[in-house]
Amino acid sequence: MSSTASEQPRPVRFGILGCASIARKLERAIQLAPGATVAAVGSRSEAKARRFAADNGLDAGVRVHGSYEALLDDPDVDAVYLPLPTSLHVRWATAAAGRGKHVLLEKPTALCTADLDAIVAACEAASVQFMDSTMMMHNLRTGRMREVLADKDAIGDIRMINSMLSFHAHEDFLQNDIRVKPDLDALGALGDLGWYCIRATLWAVDYELPKTVTALREPVKNQAGVLLACGASMHWEDGKVATFTCSFLASSAMDVTVVGTKGSLRLTDFVIPYEETSAAFSVASKLGVKELAIGWGPQPSQHVVATDLPQEALMVQEFARLVRNIRDAGADPEGMWPAITRKTQVVVDAVKVSIDKGCQPVDVTG
Amino acid sequence: MSSTASEQPRPVRFGILGCASIARKLERAIQLAPGATVAAVGSRSEAKARRFAADNGLDAGVRVHGSYEALLDDPDVDAVYLPLPTSLHVRWATAAAGRGKHVLLEKPTALCTADLDAIVAACEAASVQFMDSTMMMHNLRTGRMREVLADKDAIGDIRMINSMLSFHAHEDFLQNDIRVKPDLDALGALGDLGWYCIRATLWAVDYELPKTVTALREPVKNQAGVLLACGASMHWEDGKVATFTCSFLASSAMDVTVVGTKGSLRLTDFVIPYEETSAAFSVASKLGVKELAIGWGPQPSQHVVATDLPQEALMVQEFARLVRNIRDAGADPEGMWPAITRKTQVVVDAVKVSIDKGCQPVDVTG
Repeated sequence: MSSTASEQPRPVRFGILGCASIARKLERAIQLAPGATVAAVGSRSEAKARRFAADNGLDAGVRVHGSYEALLDDPDVDAVYLPLPTSLHVRWATAAAGRGKHVLLEKPTALCTADLDAIVAACEAASVQFMDSTMMMHNLRTGRMREVLADKDAIGDIRMINSMLSFHAHEDFLQNDIRVKPDLDALGALGDLGWYCIRATLWAVDYELPKTVTALREPVKNQAGVLLACGASMHWEDGKVATFTCSFLASSAMDVTVVGTKGSLRLTDFVIPYEETSAAFSVASKLGVKELAIGWGPQPSQHVVATDLPQEALMVQEFARLVRNIRDAGADPEGMWPAITRKTQVVVDAVKVSIDKGCQPVDVTG
Repeated sequence: MSSTASEQPRPVRFGILGCASIARKLERAIQLAPGATVAAVGSRSEAKARRFAADNGLDAGVRVHGSYEALLDDPDVDAVYLPLPTSLHVRWATAAAGRGKHVLLEKPTALCTADLDAIVAACEAASVQFMDSTMMMHNLRTGRMREVLADKDAIGDIRMINSMLSFHAHEDFLQNDIRVKPDLDALGALGDLGWYCIRATLWAVDYELPKTVTALREPVKNQAGVLLACGASMHWEDGKVATFTCSFLASSAMDVTVVGTKGSLRLTDFVIPYEETSAAFSVASKLGVKELAIGWGPQPSQHVVATDLPQEALMVQEFARLVRNIRDAGADPEGMWPAITRKTQVVVDAVKVSIDKGCQPVDVTG
């Protein structure tokens, strides 16, 4: 069915598959995003799904399913948002695609690239949209920073990148959270935090994969072998180098610094902006040193990007737009999103392989 | 001779040994610093020394020497500032100490720790003060940041450090500067820039040496094998990790980011403050995430430290104070300065050894 010009397009009806705490944020984002609505919630028990619906003030019309299968069988669900533990992604993302549901998948998308490939292949076979839930990609700031990076007079050729992402987990998290459990999220901090550092780095270099990746030595693991803190360096053919460190054991830091031949770009809240309604970054360019090097400048200039919708709602809006294109206008799924997901996963894999090999360098092959 | 309370102490009389361009900055610093004066300039030719004196408007009373030996033989010189190429440091710093001159030595202090040890031993034997010319150490900001780092409620235990230092060298520099010549400054960017990253890192951890140092792969070298860009990671027993990258091939960046268990500290002009009269850093502490992680904060707070004297004059002032203590009050030389110089040099050495070994980890032994 296609909508006429005078009609509002039918919203994309989301099913939330799993009631993880992050789902609360997405539920709100779906409600905020134009062209999207929460149609159903599914959990392993109906009671849990009902509690989620009640806790989040969902409309009485939102259907509540006592199993993931029941949610996927709901004919009035167009797309699923899937925040399950990573180890369950292959099973449920491919199942969703197999039932013709578009897939918005929480990160890290898979435990390894082969698993991700199975998910993406299922989405392609079903002609449904795939997108990972890396919200920062959709912040208006991200687009504005892309313009700065693309301006060769401002930044020039990128030479060095650093990113740091951390939060200080409480003892309860370190004992019980799915992100420290080997059977649920075996990638630990690398999957939960390193994912963003790697994505931001790839984003900065316009998704050119590095030639090699080398993990930093002495990653911190818990007793079950799950990473609590780690890092890596990435190296490109042209001499660019990027480093990142990520940690569940340090206070909140969300830094990206990109230094090019002509200038540099910095932000300290790259994953979650300090504020919902605006986000800032700084640019230093056309730098010079004063007489006798008694100072230099100009100092970085601050750029503030205002936004009406938070980045997660912008993500849902974009995802819903692509879904409507497919559902209502017969378009093909947008291939850019699974492609950048895959590059991110490939580098995550390379860091993991490097760690497993005692921090030896690993060649990256897309 | 000791001054009485009613007399001004006699200023420390500096001889500038070598007319490198950096000497212009120090000459100004000596003029600005209370208790210090430029007494003599020595160069390989008297004409060059005369030109330096004229170009910098030195008093007619400043003696001009046509050789380094003549400067060192000048009985009315208390201390030398030595900005010669690194390969000449052992010879001329030990010679200066041998003539009883206190030594303010440009960085990198030596090509290797053994050379530095020879210099420091000569200074100790002569009971003269040794200090390296790492100006940032003397910025008032540095002391203020130390207080913040020492406040365990503000930063907590340090977990991650990153520093980046770069400037985009012109073609003439890359062809002709002493810092890219294997016979003059064989450490290249590691000695010129990495020195500061390593010093800042050691400073942040209160000079606890790392357990291991591993160079980042694929350092950039010129045809003569001198480093133009490189980096390393450093690892401590307690899981702390630091990374740095430095480059002659990227635009000016001077970043230090320190992330602890409770907060973080950042500055983007750590080597040369943007302004002479004040310097800033930011601190993020007592961080929390807002409901549904739709934002976090508080945002880093900016701390500005005003100063009457630029950091290089404060360095000269402190060096002169120590020299007067020795000269006029019979005190011993202050051992803290050669000790932190040595730790810096030890880590510089470890990075170089790691690079020479194909970026294998190197154990650090103080």
